[in-house]
Amino acid sequence: MLIVKKFGGTSVANKERIFHVAERCIADYQKGHDVVVVLSAMGKYTDELIDKARDINPTPSRRELDMLLTIGEQMSVSLMAMAMNHLGARAISLNAFQVAMHTTSAHGNARLKRIDTERIRRELDDRKIVIVTGFQGVDKYDDYTTLGRGGSDTTAVALAAALHADACEIYTDVDGVYTADPRLVPTAKKLKAITYDEMLDLATLGAGVLHNRSVEMAKKYGVQLVVRSSMNDSEGTVVKEVVKKVERMIISGVALDKNADRISVFGLPDVPGSAFKLFNTLAKNNINVDIIIQSAGRDGTKDISFTVSHDNLQDAMDLLEERKEVLGFERIVSDRDVVKLSIVGAGMISNPGVAAKMFECLYNQNININMIATSEIRITVLIPEKDAIKAMNAVHEAFGLSE
Amino acid sequence: MLIVKKFGGTSVANKERIFHVAERCIADYQKGHDVVVVLSAMGKYTDELIDKARDINPTPSRRELDMLLTIGEQMSVSLMAMAMNHLGARAISLNAFQVAMHTTSAHGNARLKRIDTERIRRELDDRKIVIVTGFQGVDKYDDYTTLGRGGSDTTAVALAAALHADACEIYTDVDGVYTADPRLVPTAKKLKAITYDEMLDLATLGAGVLHNRSVEMAKKYGVQLVVRSSMNDSEGTVVKEVVKKVERMIISGVALDKNADRISVFGLPDVPGSAFKLFNTLAKNNINVDIIIQSAGRDGTKDISFTVSHDNLQDAMDLLEERKEVLGFERIVSDRDVVKLSIVGAGMISNPGVAAKMFECLYNQNININMIATSEIRITVLIPEKDAIKAMNAVHEAFGLSE
Repeated sequence: MLIVKKFGGTSVANKERIFHVAERCIADYQKGHDVVVVLSAMGKYTDELIDKARDINPTPSRRELDMLLTIGEQMSVSLMAMAMNHLGARAISLNAFQVAMHTTSAHGNARLKRIDTERIRRELDDRKIVIVTGFQGVDKYDDYTTLGRGGSDTTAVALAAALHADACEIYTDVDGVYTADPRLVPTAKKLKAITYDEMLDLATLGAGVLHNRSVEMAKKYGVQLVVRSSMNDSEGTVVKEVVKKVERMIISGVALDKNADRISVFGLPDVPGSAFKLFNTLAKNNINVDIIIQSAGRDGTKDISFTVSHDNLQDAMDLLEERKEVLGFERIVSDRDVVKLSIVGAGMISNPGVAAKMFECLYNQNININMIATSEIRITVLIPEKDAIKAMNAVHEAFGLSE
Repeated sequence: MLIVKKFGGTSVANKERIFHVAERCIADYQKGHDVVVVLSAMGKYTDELIDKARDINPTPSRRELDMLLTIGEQMSVSLMAMAMNHLGARAISLNAFQVAMHTTSAHGNARLKRIDTERIRRELDDRKIVIVTGFQGVDKYDDYTTLGRGGSDTTAVALAAALHADACEIYTDVDGVYTADPRLVPTAKKLKAITYDEMLDLATLGAGVLHNRSVEMAKKYGVQLVVRSSMNDSEGTVVKEVVKKVERMIISGVALDKNADRISVFGLPDVPGSAFKLFNTLAKNNINVDIIIQSAGRDGTKDISFTVSHDNLQDAMDLLEERKEVLGFERIVSDRDVVKLSIVGAGMISNPGVAAKMFECLYNQNININMIATSEIRITVLIPEKDAIKAMNAVHEAFGLSE
């Protein structure tokens, strides 16, 4: 069996943890498996490198920043190889050049295009454990690139796809995917299995267990993932295409996203194109808009509300105030004290009334819903921040996830 | 003009020094020159990485150690590019893969075989300052290698040769090559010029200003070097093939090497092959021997003395004691309290009596000479450690270097 195992920064943060990971990988190797290990930079080292860069240049070029950041994983993989050697195992570390990991040239947010498997295959055939730098790639100009936050998950999935691996295990500091964040919902349960689509919505919505691009890639190439804890041997959660009915509840999880602020624009002219102009202005300035609702205003005008991330709120407000006359609205207000609460579940498709049940549950708790957005397998509501924990627990309970 | 400038670890040890180096390089660039900068790892970072490796594995594989060590220079060059960018200059950092620097596979002590200049030329043509990682290379297996201590000097010289540079400037924490170490000989003078051969003997003898492999390479390819201070603008010392008579003294410098211990082997059988067996035993165990003298012993035996470095003394003594019967000697003794004092000068070739003058000078100071070794341009004596400073100053004075 060929197994790809990915360990995040926390799992290799110090000597003791490096040896712990080394032992785990060697155990699989000694069973006769081919083992490929993907590592992130140690602990918070990537953040430290970013600080180091910003100290020299507050706005470093992305090309040079990637040149700096890639050393983080190169440190992890070489130290891991030394640890495995010390434990008597044959191991070799490889970076993005050595593999090679071909990506686009979008520094800081590159996409993997192609992975050469020749070198890895040769080392595996030579019965070595192969330790690969996550997160990084090389573009057509021979320049380093990075895949963005959580990119090591993507590296692992892409390697598993390219090598036709039998398993792709993502080790993290939680022991699987839960029905809700256990720190916020004490009755949250670990899921045995979840579909790619459900996981995608949970990842996007801030559950934070898996990087969403890695899930997209796993879905595209049919790579079955297992999310497991690097600290213990519990079974973890399988992420795959179809989850059998017996394993599945209507709702798989409840996710909370605190990184959302609301902007309301009042008194836009009720003529064709006014909404387009508004959102085009924001898009041109790289401000992503999430939930949008539009309602009739007074006297032939309309009101539009939408959410943006914390980072973008001030920019969005400044920009719209500046274009007030061109866009023709009366006034704008923003609200920081809101959160997005979502329920996700592939079972929704065949179970009508899920939305109604969620709204009823919130009504019973006397929680006001500001905005609503839905997809086939997800319902998201914007609610006051103060009600977040109460709402999360109530919804979790209402859909039987606490049982 | 195309200028290669090399800065050591001390010169890029922190933010302030990085900016100081950046400004210096930009000044040359703004005069219209093409500028290639070679950097070492920051401060003591290479040592810190070695400690990190040893903490994981006391005897890390050289291949993996090189994989770890190469991140040191990659950090320096990317931060330097950011600093230059911040000062408004166009700059790009390149590592051993990107250049590419082809070396042998002798990890930790690799030799440069070939440097591709295409990428560097392209970036120079694009009017960028090109910042290259010193010390590191890539072998035919696509694995990282390092050139050994001081290897960044070699990288700079090799780049200057490959690019047919007009100048190769080695910046260091001293402002040139002196007639003796100014900390030990207060009257030491800075040399305006010195030949490759003299510099080679001084480098080998522990003057420590330039890595000897870099001087050998400069000689081989006719690269004229300038040794300068990274802290001030003083002119430095030129290292070249021929130094005009008017610039030259008979002796260029006095060097002290404290890293020498003496071993004396008494009562070896005076038959052919006994010296060969002795030194062959040492060579096979990677113990380098320096000065050797042989003298007749009593009763058809001979005595041989030689010097080894501190590191090798205990190994050499243990090894010889173990082989005592095979080698057939009576006893061995070692002496740690000795130093090597050398005078170096191309002028010796045409000036007889230099050795006699040195011995007379030491005799006048009542200093006992243990061993003597000479080459065309060098005379080395082994003397008691306690007399080192006195001897050095006396010789320096006697040859008129203090004037």
